Amino acid sequence: MLCMATNIEVTLAFRLEQPTDILLQFEAADIPEQQILSATCSLDEADHMARVPAQDDIGLRMWLNANCRYDVHYAASVAVERLLPDIASLARLDSHDLPGEAVQYLFDSRYIPADRFQNFVTEEFGSSTGGAQVLAMSDWIGSHLSYVPGVSNANTTGMDTFVERQGVCRDYAHVMIMLARAAGIPARYVSLYDPGVTPQDFHAVAEVFLADPGVKDGGAWHLVDPTGMADPAHSVKIGVGRDAADVSFLTSFGNCEMLEQSVSVTRSEDE
Amino acid sequence: MLCMATNIEVTLAFRLEQPTDILLQFEAADIPEQQILSATCSLDEADHMARVPAQDDIGLRMWLNANCRYDVHYAASVAVERLLPDIASLARLDSHDLPGEAVQYLFDSRYIPADRFQNFVTEEFGSSTGGAQVLAMSDWIGSHLSYVPGVSNANTTGMDTFVERQGVCRDYAHVMIMLARAAGIPARYVSLYDPGVTPQDFHAVAEVFLADPGVKDGGAWHLVDPTGMADPAHSVKIGVGRDAADVSFLTSFGNCEMLEQSVSVTRSEDE
Amino acid sequence: MLCMATNIEVTLAFRLEQPTDILLQFEAADIPEQQILSATCSLDEADHMARVPAQDDIGLRMWLNANCRYDVHYAASVAVERLLPDIASLARLDSHDLPGEAVQYLFDSRYIPADRFQNFVTEEFGSSTGGAQVLAMSDWIGSHLSYVPGVSNANTTGMDTFVERQGVCRDYAHVMIMLARAAGIPARYVSLYDPGVTPQDFHAVAEVFLADPGVKDGGAWHLVDPTGMADPAHSVKIGVGRDAADVSFLTSFGNCEMLEQSVSVTRSEDE
Amino acid sequence: MLCMATNIEVTLAFRLEQPTDILLQFEAADIPEQQILSATCSLDEADHMARVPAQDDIGLRMWLNANCRYDVHYAASVAVERLLPDIASLARLDSHDLPGEAVQYLFDSRYIPADRFQNFVTEEFGSSTGGAQVLAMSDWIGSHLSYVPGVSNANTTGMDTFVERQGVCRDYAHVMIMLARAAGIPARYVSLYDPGVTPQDFHAVAEVFLADPGVKDGGAWHLVDPTGMADPAHSVKIGVGRDAADVSFLTSFGNCEMLEQSVSVTRSEDE
Repeated sequence: MLCMATNIEVTLAFRLEQPTDILLQFEAADIPEQQILSATCSLDEADHMARVPAQDDIGLRMWLNANCRYDVHYAASVAVERLLPDIASLARLDSHDLPGEAVQYLFDSRYIPADRFQNFVTEEFGSSTGGAQVLAMSDWIGSHLSYVPGVSNANTTGMDTFVERQGVCRDYAHVMIMLARAAGIPARYVSLYDPGVTPQDFHAVAEVFLADPGVKDGGAWHLVDPTGMADPAHSVKIGVGRDAADVSFLTSFGNCEMLEQSVSVTRSEDE
Repeated sequence: MLCMATNIEVTLAFRLEQPTDILLQFEAADIPEQQILSATCSLDEADHMARVPAQDDIGLRMWLNANCRYDVHYAASVAVERLLPDIASLARLDSHDLPGEAVQYLFDSRYIPADRFQNFVTEEFGSSTGGAQVLAMSDWIGSHLSYVPGVSNANTTGMDTFVERQGVCRDYAHVMIMLARAAGIPARYVSLYDPGVTPQDFHAVAEVFLADPGVKDGGAWHLVDPTGMADPAHSVKIGVGRDAADVSFLTSFGNCEMLEQSVSVTRSEDE
Repeated sequence: MLCMATNIEVTLAFRLEQPTDILLQFEAADIPEQQILSATCSLDEADHMARVPAQDDIGLRMWLNANCRYDVHYAASVAVERLLPDIASLARLDSHDLPGEAVQYLFDSRYIPADRFQNFVTEEFGSSTGGAQVLAMSDWIGSHLSYVPGVSNANTTGMDTFVERQGVCRDYAHVMIMLARAAGIPARYVSLYDPGVTPQDFHAVAEVFLADPGVKDGGAWHLVDPTGMADPAHSVKIGVGRDAADVSFLTSFGNCEMLEQSVSVTRSEDE
Repeated sequence: MLCMATNIEVTLAFRLEQPTDILLQFEAADIPEQQILSATCSLDEADHMARVPAQDDIGLRMWLNANCRYDVHYAASVAVERLLPDIASLARLDSHDLPGEAVQYLFDSRYIPADRFQNFVTEEFGSSTGGAQVLAMSDWIGSHLSYVPGVSNANTTGMDTFVERQGVCRDYAHVMIMLARAAGIPARYVSLYDPGVTPQDFHAVAEVFLADPGVKDGGAWHLVDPTGMADPAHSVKIGVGRDAADVSFLTSFGNCEMLEQSVSVTRSEDE
């Protein structure tokens, strides 16, 4: 039997001046919506290596303690089996029906002061609700923001991006999550691989919690990419979090010089 | 047999202009370190009421959909059975030994841009480590901040408080968590009741993840109150979160006028 | 001969705990566009009192060194003789034709990070220019902001107000100035009295530097009030500055408790 | 007669995509404390060129409207005749004795939220006053900040630098001004040339308004460089402002690509 697969190849190399703790998160998450057909992860030897569950039990974080130059090669082939309902038709859940695990995604986070956007959201998006409202927000972002590498940095919040009207995928996702939360819709940040991303790199999108069309009164997470580059039918999730503060592919607890970072994502037929 | 108990009485009243979703979190958490001897929660009738697990499964959040005036009366008696190691003697865990659930508490959150404080923390607290370092931070906060009600608001971050040198328990806790995270120590925000709080009110402190003296290579959360008002031997936890964004006693998804808020916490012998 | 006058009555009272330097700016400025028919200023005795020229030589600032309770009573009658061109018809000056004294009003100031709004201004107001563009901005503010006392404080910037969509006259003026500067139009903050302000109080508006219809190639300052409450034909200027940081009616260099603040402004026929 | 001179050579080149207004400020200011022995300014032809007085009438700003590549060569030789009192011995002026033109330099500006630092300044520097207090602040900055190019950007405020403890001359000057203003001492930002700056570039320092030792009850501006690189006996002032927002050497009202920027400053004997 043939199936289409998303194929990922990642090379990372970095240099540490002294023994340093490093947290990595770059592997395709082993979750029901994506079947990992094959995966190889080649790592240099480290003084310590451990994998721990990542946020919401989606994917793993990898702890290293390493020194000098460190190289990572990762290749995986993943069959994406995600249900893809028509977002526009999805109902909003009443806040009081939200399950406990979705509640934290209503709240403000490091880069997302959503509370401050309630008036804007009511004025601009108050005429629709649920999935239609989310799509209106995503369209608004697509038409009001410009994709400009290099204008944002580690301190840039969704509020900054909203004002300056430019940024990269991280910033687009922040604004999307900010507007959704301001409307009372739980929203989280997703790090993923997608073949449509240009230039190829790690990518970030939003995920909103709306009705699950397959479960009466149930809710589910649905991918939304305001940059329009990712196709949820092909996207392979790495991990999730409140915002970019939670899902870096590399966090270093000490000086770390990035030497190489390459990502290649393609679609292919797999047997 | 006699045991000492912490006794809590809370009265809340608020008015809603129309049917509004409300999220409450004020009940003593049912967790091993505190035995709930008795608890009564008297609530006005609501169109919807559900309890869901709160963050890290500590305590419950209560969803309401209510209208008009709404009254809450809560009384509980709780025997605190918390282990109280000498914080100063607790070792720091290597970052690479942290369990998955502690990792999110290393990261920046809404009110806590900890990354920006790494230089300050290295300079000011670099000569100690682990619990001794945490106590040095707590002492620094106690001697450099003034407890001044009314100077902070819903936008005030730990960075604001660090600069302005004044605030209330929420702000003290934010600075404590910020300094700990900047030193690579996981830290979270804890909402609790304590008889030593003056004037009596909901209280907030920090909790840091350091070695568990009872478990080889294990880690545990330890309470630290930079205001010095709470005594961990008496404190009754309500819930935890990344920072104040996560653990309000009341979050309203629409206009809500607070009419009454009274908290009384005492110590007594209980049979 | 009869002329219409704007009549001002102000009462201020404040208490100082110890000898404290106070800077006051509340008197009608003695400038060509407004003729001061009468003015009385009754001040308690102070250890020191001096008037110094205020920003751009518009009005005076008054230094006091006072102690205990201090009372100010001010009454003035002012004939406003301001030229009132049709703003919509005023041309924009090329930046390179701006006189030296207008240049500082192109730059960012404490509450006005105008540079960050260039993309927004180009997108939203790029189809008009000069006075027509300024009026489009003022209209946009009038229809997108709500006048809500109490939501802003001494840290609230024009960027905050732009996002939160609410504020008072100070905040409306900040957004107006921010948008104008982002379009390369010098704009300053004006403190003034106007009978149309409800409830009566000190008022703040913007002033933009556009062509002077009476002087070939010349430029002049023109009042614009995005709240719509002030009528430039009746407004009596107190002072100007980069933003609210520059033109408080009272700045205290030490603790100061405000006891009374009342402002009454009316129109009358004067002989 | 021989005198020592500070010799300046500057080359700037930039490219404009279309006719663009440019504001330049790089010439040695023609003010009593520095005698311009010789100066040549070679500019490409522009469609418009005008010089206007800069802030506080110190130096000139130059308006250009240019297109394509534009080259600037500037050379000057300047004899510095600045009075250099012992800063430590200078008294503070009472606020209420400050002249009108110094008052604006007490207030917050774009990058300098000085009001928020009053508690810190009282605690850390409350035991001294006047020039001694200023030097204590400058020493504190020198020992608590690290000079690190590349960590600050156009949004970085003095508050950011205070927290992050690193920056360049612009950031050091901002913190110096912020602390002085928080103590009620007028302080402004000075752009200048100095042979001691490494690597050679435009430089920025602070200037504080304290007693003028030569004038009874008078005040004067005194240079203070918390980086320690500039020597006021050799520094040649270009211009002043509230903070870096006011004194860029180049402000472009449209896209502008910097092609070359070189500054050379030396000391020599001049006849």
